[in-house]
Amino acid sequence: MTSPFRIAIAGLGTVGGGVVKALAARQDELSQRAGRPLLLTAVSARDRKKSRGFDIPGWSDDPLALAKGDADCVVELIGGDEGVARQLVETALANGKHVVTANKALLAKHGKALALLAEEKGVTLKFEAAAAGGIPIVKVLREDLIAHGVDAVKGILNGTCNFILTEMERSGRGFDDVLAEAQAKGYAEADPTLDVGGGDTAHKLALLASLAFGTAPALDAVSVEGITHISADDIAFASEFGFRIKLLGTARRVGDAIDQKVQPVLVRASSALASVSGAANGVLVDAGEAGQFFFSGRGAGEAPTASAVIADIVEAASGAPSPVFGRPAAGLTALRPADGKAAISPWYLRFEVLDVPGVLAAIAGNLAEAGVSIESMIQRGRAPGEPVAIVMITHETAQAQVERALKAIGASDKVRARPCMIPMEA
Amino acid sequence: MTSPFRIAIAGLGTVGGGVVKALAARQDELSQRAGRPLLLTAVSARDRKKSRGFDIPGWSDDPLALAKGDADCVVELIGGDEGVARQLVETALANGKHVVTANKALLAKHGKALALLAEEKGVTLKFEAAAAGGIPIVKVLREDLIAHGVDAVKGILNGTCNFILTEMERSGRGFDDVLAEAQAKGYAEADPTLDVGGGDTAHKLALLASLAFGTAPALDAVSVEGITHISADDIAFASEFGFRIKLLGTARRVGDAIDQKVQPVLVRASSALASVSGAANGVLVDAGEAGQFFFSGRGAGEAPTASAVIADIVEAASGAPSPVFGRPAAGLTALRPADGKAAISPWYLRFEVLDVPGVLAAIAGNLAEAGVSIESMIQRGRAPGEPVAIVMITHETAQAQVERALKAIGASDKVRARPCMIPMEA
Repeated sequence: MTSPFRIAIAGLGTVGGGVVKALAARQDELSQRAGRPLLLTAVSARDRKKSRGFDIPGWSDDPLALAKGDADCVVELIGGDEGVARQLVETALANGKHVVTANKALLAKHGKALALLAEEKGVTLKFEAAAAGGIPIVKVLREDLIAHGVDAVKGILNGTCNFILTEMERSGRGFDDVLAEAQAKGYAEADPTLDVGGGDTAHKLALLASLAFGTAPALDAVSVEGITHISADDIAFASEFGFRIKLLGTARRVGDAIDQKVQPVLVRASSALASVSGAANGVLVDAGEAGQFFFSGRGAGEAPTASAVIADIVEAASGAPSPVFGRPAAGLTALRPADGKAAISPWYLRFEVLDVPGVLAAIAGNLAEAGVSIESMIQRGRAPGEPVAIVMITHETAQAQVERALKAIGASDKVRARPCMIPMEA
Repeated sequence: MTSPFRIAIAGLGTVGGGVVKALAARQDELSQRAGRPLLLTAVSARDRKKSRGFDIPGWSDDPLALAKGDADCVVELIGGDEGVARQLVETALANGKHVVTANKALLAKHGKALALLAEEKGVTLKFEAAAAGGIPIVKVLREDLIAHGVDAVKGILNGTCNFILTEMERSGRGFDDVLAEAQAKGYAEADPTLDVGGGDTAHKLALLASLAFGTAPALDAVSVEGITHISADDIAFASEFGFRIKLLGTARRVGDAIDQKVQPVLVRASSALASVSGAANGVLVDAGEAGQFFFSGRGAGEAPTASAVIADIVEAASGAPSPVFGRPAAGLTALRPADGKAAISPWYLRFEVLDVPGVLAAIAGNLAEAGVSIESMIQRGRAPGEPVAIVMITHETAQAQVERALKAIGASDKVRARPCMIPMEA
């Protein structure tokens, strides 16, 4: 065997702890796979005194010291798109060290610049754990589904949202109720905005789009809508139509532009994505002539995320450095955003209206004026005096048209709250 | 860019043609990914005069000449576990050339010896296309799901069988009828034995087991049962119980032994594997603590298989040679076969019996004697004089026990044909 591969880990939270434990448990096997001994030589975390259940070698209070020590590879598990994490990754790369990270925000924002730096220094920058936890979708897009191009990537990339939506469907409860339970159980953060607002999915989608299309990660070009407005009614109505509501990150080629969207979508109950339940993740890749491929599994948590980090470490130790996004970073083109509002699909529409004569006629009139035609409709009675839910499924229509109609409808004083519109799989 | 990577292809059938076309269509992009120009410099196939719709460079009538020429990488797409294919791969490796192959039979039989040769010569031997077509399951097992070990791999690995079973379910027709149609349409070979008999799945399973468990491929230790005895009735009954019948290749760890089986299995209709329909493939990996991961897509055909071959070529061109089965070949251990008949599951049993008094009592008696207890039963009436189908689902029972009972039951002159037994997912 050749010289050892020295590993320094910054951040010993859930994932960092999982990496340390898995490395220790399979040191010999993983070293054989890497072709050289894997040695954890340094770590840095916030609290040295915390009891972790494993030995800590080479403690450093300053994470940046790891980028300046004798490590061959720095594993960044601090998080955040600026600050210490960015400084650590930049310094490590500049000092000719390989970097493995789970930091989606950092890569989504500074991916191209960091890739350029890594490639200039002849080292590798790997981020499998940043996209879908244990599902090796980064490598699949970077190295496997490359022969026929990719037309679209669609993913359930946030386990918290999928857990909430699954639990809402299972129990019939509302969003707030299920979120509170998820928070109590530790499945959702105290401030859940990044998850339920769609931001986390957007970070991950920007990375997958870059890998799929050879464009620099373009987080700002992702249109983002979360799941906070999804009601128990929406989920029940979707189910009646044979659909489930999932928060999808979708990146697809539209001519020479790319449409990147994070939004709730009604997916057919029989589809692969609909089968992804609870905190799992799932990704569908439309690889042109080669057809569709689907990947699912655990997208977060200690072991699945550590699994991705360790695969990256072994590859960094064993392989020749390959381009960070599959193609030389200098050649990553600027993503040209497609007109997202031109996207055509059937739509699920829900209106909460006062139960007075003429309301349905007014809504139907506004839809007709915008050229939106209705495929089916459910109107459900409530107790006297309560608002009535009207749900419609449209024929295939451009988003802009539906928005125009809903703006007119929302202006009526007979319509309560903002009408809800969710695209459906055709 | 560094020196070009010279590629020689032996075999220009469906897959070979697909590789040539995809290489030509994306030469620049694939060369960028590889970090060096990819050049197709030589080919060999049976019939030079055949019109193929693409240009043929460097024709050679003798495939073995490719192993002696100036190619950096030989792509073997001839097939067969001996003869020219084996000679070509051995000679190419011995001459220090990388080899990419789709040849499952060759690898399943001679995998360890070939891997030793490749590693001795410092070249790579890649076979992504040999397992599940476009699904990158070889790489996933070799490089990704490595941190927590693998407890089991289950796959639908033969598109022809899955097409037949799906079509039998959809149409209610019998095996022979659907097979004949599949042959007429070119989905099944004139001699379908290797597919419907389970042999092809066994080849692929032996490779996946090797990657998953660090054992040398052990084809002889795979217990193989095909789908020729599955009737339209079995599929209909399974459906009544909420199951589908799939031909699965399963390799699982049992203590320090490995159980490798190819057999029809009743999988729950709601499961990921049940959702794999038509000619698709699907693989479920139980990666210990990291959880279950599922992968599906097209497992055969021109573009999906070419996709896998091209990913291997690009990796051979760009990467440092890594161990063929993920770990140094010298360390691949001899697989210790588990006692397959000790496998415990519920069982689907079907008996065709004469409609005379006492038959059910006799069957029930034989089952009880062998310690097999029944969870549910369906008996279906037929026209007078015709045999009656009795279907039973057992509680969890070892295979050996069920076989013992069925041997006794089959000896009765009231039971027509061999009783059918199929394991079920618990």
